[in-house]
Amino acid sequence: MFFETPVYFISSSAVGGHEEMSSPYSSHFDFFHDKDTFGEDTFEKAESELSRIAFNFLLNKIKMSQEDIELLISGDLQNQCVASSYGLYTFGIPYLPLYGACSTCTEGLLVASLYLQAVEKTKPHYVGVVTTSHNSAAERQFRTPLEYGAERTPTSQWTATAGGAFLLTQQKNHILPLHDSPFAVRIVWGRAGKVIDGAIADASNMGAAMAPAACDSIRHFFCHTPYQIDDIDAIVTGDLGEVGSRLLCELLLEEGIDISSIHHDCGLCLYDKTSQDVHAGASGCGCSASLLSAMVLPKLKSGEWKRVLFLSTGALMSPSSVLQGISIFGIAPMVLLESEKMCF
Amino acid sequence: MFFETPVYFISSSAVGGHEEMSSPYSSHFDFFHDKDTFGEDTFEKAESELSRIAFNFLLNKIKMSQEDIELLISGDLQNQCVASSYGLYTFGIPYLPLYGACSTCTEGLLVASLYLQAVEKTKPHYVGVVTTSHNSAAERQFRTPLEYGAERTPTSQWTATAGGAFLLTQQKNHILPLHDSPFAVRIVWGRAGKVIDGAIADASNMGAAMAPAACDSIRHFFCHTPYQIDDIDAIVTGDLGEVGSRLLCELLLEEGIDISSIHHDCGLCLYDKTSQDVHAGASGCGCSASLLSAMVLPKLKSGEWKRVLFLSTGALMSPSSVLQGISIFGIAPMVLLESEKMCF
Repeated sequence: MFFETPVYFISSSAVGGHEEMSSPYSSHFDFFHDKDTFGEDTFEKAESELSRIAFNFLLNKIKMSQEDIELLISGDLQNQCVASSYGLYTFGIPYLPLYGACSTCTEGLLVASLYLQAVEKTKPHYVGVVTTSHNSAAERQFRTPLEYGAERTPTSQWTATAGGAFLLTQQKNHILPLHDSPFAVRIVWGRAGKVIDGAIADASNMGAAMAPAACDSIRHFFCHTPYQIDDIDAIVTGDLGEVGSRLLCELLLEEGIDISSIHHDCGLCLYDKTSQDVHAGASGCGCSASLLSAMVLPKLKSGEWKRVLFLSTGALMSPSSVLQGISIFGIAPMVLLESEKMCF
Repeated sequence: MFFETPVYFISSSAVGGHEEMSSPYSSHFDFFHDKDTFGEDTFEKAESELSRIAFNFLLNKIKMSQEDIELLISGDLQNQCVASSYGLYTFGIPYLPLYGACSTCTEGLLVASLYLQAVEKTKPHYVGVVTTSHNSAAERQFRTPLEYGAERTPTSQWTATAGGAFLLTQQKNHILPLHDSPFAVRIVWGRAGKVIDGAIADASNMGAAMAPAACDSIRHFFCHTPYQIDDIDAIVTGDLGEVGSRLLCELLLEEGIDISSIHHDCGLCLYDKTSQDVHAGASGCGCSASLLSAMVLPKLKSGEWKRVLFLSTGALMSPSSVLQGISIFGIAPMVLLESEKMCF
């Protein structure tokens, strides 16, 4: 759907752990914890602390108080999304928890945009979106405890210990004094994805499981909006990794859509392939969330990109469903981001 | 927030398992499976089948096709919400997965209402909301495998094997030919709840853990809307059970708000206390969802109730967080339901 009232990013933050310090985009991150523990005694609590730090950095950057924020939308990969609810409850903001697997960041932006369409428009309203993942918390939950030292397969991806926080509003005028760049970034269109069964049951090959969902969403975008490939500067997927990215380009080419020249995958951008061995790339809710803040928004705010189709990709499965041999379904909600010249 | 465009229920359905067949509201249920397996070989798959059946009954009742529905919002208690995504993917409807623990039903109605505010208003738009829970799938995930035969404590509640499905639209005129009763039911107001720490770490005492969140939400409602107690026919909470319901009334009385004469808790209404031993009452996503369809909507559609504050209550915890001794946080999103006389 096209949003009658465009939704503007006021600010964002990106937080990472040890592996993320070597990211090619590390200079755009706001904080790293070099031991991944974030000062906590369990990895699960560390992820809660990561989400709290990400949101605190966001608030501090723009000197806003948590009382001004009406709604907080959040999710993560832990069972029952406890990382987010435990991490963010101290802010005391009305809360909408989501679970879209690794697609939660885009799902959150979409629901935030819906909320900002529904509010009365005479005053500015502020909504926060936070998404995180933690490598050690995710690995022991979804696969095997780290202490087992299980060998990783070539198609497996490295769940990022990372998170991103975003603050959105519907009043363009209000963002002017806060903004630090010549271009503002707005969300003008969005769509929830369909659940697609790619017939992959291997929990170490999530890229292949999610590629058909990303393909379905992108095909829908070009069939049901007036945009052509040339109108878009970049199509940024969440965490398809090497296998899923190649598959996505192949699947779309079969439909006559060639995105290879404008496709970027956060799973392939987060780490440096030449020096970091993460097998098929990065994954996790925090992968696309941190790179939205550290890669996509900076390129839009500088004017390098004008229009970006951003779609995080999620694998809908649970440890039990994998043990029961059910195939892993994919989903890929989308938002269309545009840069807009600010007049001072 | 007050919804500028009221959101109307077109139809609903309620599905239950073996224990739910003896519910005082069983005559308003659409389907029961007397073995809780719904024809599947695992309890997890049974819950997926339950959600599919609930949504199918909804569509059949109003002779609508799944192609007419723009968005499906769903959630359940299983890890990573797989019951919903596996159960509903066959419908091929764009999908927004949520996780609000047992509060997911109200959270879904809230997000659906936001969506219907944001759409262009010249034509009718349709959104589905489905929520389920399954006793056996939940027990072995959150507490102990059923085969252990663990003794249940007096404060523990019985997770309902049940689900509810709802279809909403923003165009009042369009519901007329479909409607089967003198009153239509609309959602006019809603609010996401705050995450509240009630300092309870006992996973068998969820009612006490959630009561402070329900108290915070109800207090907010009476402080920030023009409504007084006398304007409301019923306040219906999700699954506080005996312990939580008593606690909620006590907490609100301390604030000078006496809801005891209009308070109904789905956890106390779903089963027959005289013949069904479920300890402190029912619980689960499916408890409030099925009774919204089988108890609340029928009373509003018949005109017995005119205005109802409906708030499902959720306990934000995971099996790991309980083992790590972290307290269980509560959340209670709200919607205000009104009956509206239809003119034929």
